Amino acid sequence: MSKGDKVVILDFWASPFCARVKIALEEKGLKHENSEEDLFGGKSELLLKSNPIHQRVPVLLHNDKPVLESANIVSYIDETWSSNSLLPTCAYGRAQARFWVDYIDKKVFDTGRSIWASNGEEREVATRDFIEVLKNLEEALGEKDYFGGDAFGYVDIIAIPHSAWFLAYEKLGDFKIKDHAPKFSAWIKRCLQRQSVAKVLPDPEKVYQFVLHFRKMEGLD
Amino acid sequence: MSKGDKVVILDFWASPFCARVKIALEEKGLKHENSEEDLFGGKSELLLKSNPIHQRVPVLLHNDKPVLESANIVSYIDETWSSNSLLPTCAYGRAQARFWVDYIDKKVFDTGRSIWASNGEEREVATRDFIEVLKNLEEALGEKDYFGGDAFGYVDIIAIPHSAWFLAYEKLGDFKIKDHAPKFSAWIKRCLQRQSVAKVLPDPEKVYQFVLHFRKMEGLD
Repeated sequence: MSKGDKVVILDFWASPFCARVKIALEEKGLKHENSEEDLFGGKSELLLKSNPIHQRVPVLLHNDKPVLESANIVSYIDETWSSNSLLPTCAYGRAQARFWVDYIDKKVFDTGRSIWASNGEEREVATRDFIEVLKNLEEALGEKDYFGGDAFGYVDIIAIPHSAWFLAYEKLGDFKIKDHAPKFSAWIKRCLQRQSVAKVLPDPEKVYQFVLHFRKMEGLD
Repeated sequence: MSKGDKVVILDFWASPFCARVKIALEEKGLKHENSEEDLFGGKSELLLKSNPIHQRVPVLLHNDKPVLESANIVSYIDETWSSNSLLPTCAYGRAQARFWVDYIDKKVFDTGRSIWASNGEEREVATRDFIEVLKNLEEALGEKDYFGGDAFGYVDIIAIPHSAWFLAYEKLGDFKIKDHAPKFSAWIKRCLQRQSVAKVLPDPEKVYQFVLHFRKMEGLD
């Protein structure tokens, strides 16, 4: 990082997508400023100007230039500040990592949302779907410590922030992740011991209360 | 490419996702074998084994090792065979390209499908949504010849195969792309003059007939 580099995140405390960016910056040892967005009260002009298409967090502003979409931002951080590589060094390893990142992006948050933003049969179906996703991730992890092997890396950074929401999924879906995916469950504990992760992730109980508040607002409880 | 390298695509003629991979290989001048899948009659054992999660084409088999998901495969091809770079060389350019690739992946095919796989008001809404997507792409293109600037590259390879389906969208949605996005329309013509694209893309009339056949099978006509 050049001495004059300015790194700002347009952030939201409970967003697993924002947490990815913050963990990546921690892993690189980069100083940055977090600008918390008021997603319910009104988004900032800077957010709307920086991300006119999706109008959502996170945005990384690197010397005022916006980089968008969390998996893309983590990749950009890795390519821009090359110390402590997050992505695998070989093309095939990168392709495998990007496959799982894409899978996580398509499945984890939306399936999880279908658990906590529903009731009755819809929630039961969503819970079964989520357990299928967990089993696929369990198999991808296999006997490895991290998704990429021995070292904490790209796929771990993309996946672990979702774990702050898992308490809410478990309570509302009435299941335990460790009963269905014990290796994945052990991987969560392993990641949470890491300083970058522990520093960034919100308290799952606080996320659960946020979810309950959201459910009330939406008339689900 | 090493002399002994074997490159096989598990392919389907009408798939814009498969076409991306074929165009990228043409751009790199790489010899490859296409194995056409019978998606309606029964997928091959090789496809099910290579892509157990999604069970879909394209799959790139590079010396029998599977690489999955078309945007990821094009990126892998570019990183593995470095002559004639498809992605921008600077990290910020790559981040911008990946943003638009993600946007295209999320919006173009699914919104297009909502036009041709529906009727009545649902189709009208889908057509309006599709025109919004076109306008965003028109703005991203701006006054440039290609999405990345002067040279045909990553975003162009991801986007142009969808154009083989545009005749079907236009006929069923009753609109003309050039009326809403003239620069994007000129970009399509520019790309179609390129040998790699002309060689790979199917005839839009044949795709339109395929869509009509599909609509009949689904009881939409």
